[in-house]
Amino acid sequence: MIILGIDPGIAILGYGVVEYKGNTFKPLGYGGIFTDAKEAMPMRLKKIYDELQQIIDKYHPDVVAIEELFFNKNVKTALLVGQARGVAILAAANNEIDIYEYTPLQVKQGVVGYGRADKKQVQVMTKTLLNLKSVPKPDDVADALAVAICHAHSGAFGGLFKIK
Amino acid sequence: MIILGIDPGIAILGYGVVEYKGNTFKPLGYGGIFTDAKEAMPMRLKKIYDELQQIIDKYHPDVVAIEELFFNKNVKTALLVGQARGVAILAAANNEIDIYEYTPLQVKQGVVGYGRADKKQVQVMTKTLLNLKSVPKPDDVADALAVAICHAHSGAFGGLFKIK
Repeated sequence: MIILGIDPGIAILGYGVVEYKGNTFKPLGYGGIFTDAKEAMPMRLKKIYDELQQIIDKYHPDVVAIEELFFNKNVKTALLVGQARGVAILAAANNEIDIYEYTPLQVKQGVVGYGRADKKQVQVMTKTLLNLKSVPKPDDVADALAVAICHAHSGAFGGLFKIK
Repeated sequence: MIILGIDPGIAILGYGVVEYKGNTFKPLGYGGIFTDAKEAMPMRLKKIYDELQQIIDKYHPDVVAIEELFFNKNVKTALLVGQARGVAILAAANNEIDIYEYTPLQVKQGVVGYGRADKKQVQVMTKTLLNLKSVPKPDDVADALAVAICHAHSGAFGGLFKIK
């Protein structure tokens, strides 16, 4: 199973593609889609959509796992991240790929094994499971890989967004 | 000039297409894109995108005017509306149509002439300018027509989202 994990954001959208087979992980590709705050919003959203389409074309993921967002930030930020998230979900939907969403708590449980793990523990476990030399930077990329791992480990208990 | 006004939302996205020529308005088409809360989010976003594409194909708008959202609602709502808004902006961007956004205050100023107008006054003026028999329902549709009128009257002072 090839899983595309996404950590949505407007300035940086983290993505991580992992193959999960026989209880082991292989990282296929990961990184960030970066958009410039000086660019107009339509162009930023279009860039996110187009680059996600390229990633989908390249890796043919069977499933997309996306982080559910809980904010202690303000409403304006939520609206902007929502715009990026909507475009990411649309990219998966247009390619008829099932989408699952996971809360930060579920990601911690799915990666480390308990929900009170801190960010650092999640990152170290992600690095270990994927056999990487270091934790991918920026955090958005590590978070995207973590949500992909969470999906593999969870048996798709997220499921809210299943589209097929 | 043909203007597509959009009042973004996830359950109802209001749209209104007006032609503005020689200081008069002609309504070409208006209504709502309705999505079912029982449907999965990817399918709801895809429906919004696909129906907007059909509207764009039918009316060939020169410009899109969209309402900027100010919430007194919660962060979760902002995130959901943001997702719908992101998809609507992407539809315009993918068709290389300039997008302008207007605050509710600007819409009131642009339609009625002063920013302290109430919702009812905006609706009555919208009906009058478009020579309609009654105020279009639901409110989202009337709001979409109002933002289109605002753009015509404003000389595009919004401009934040201009993409070309």
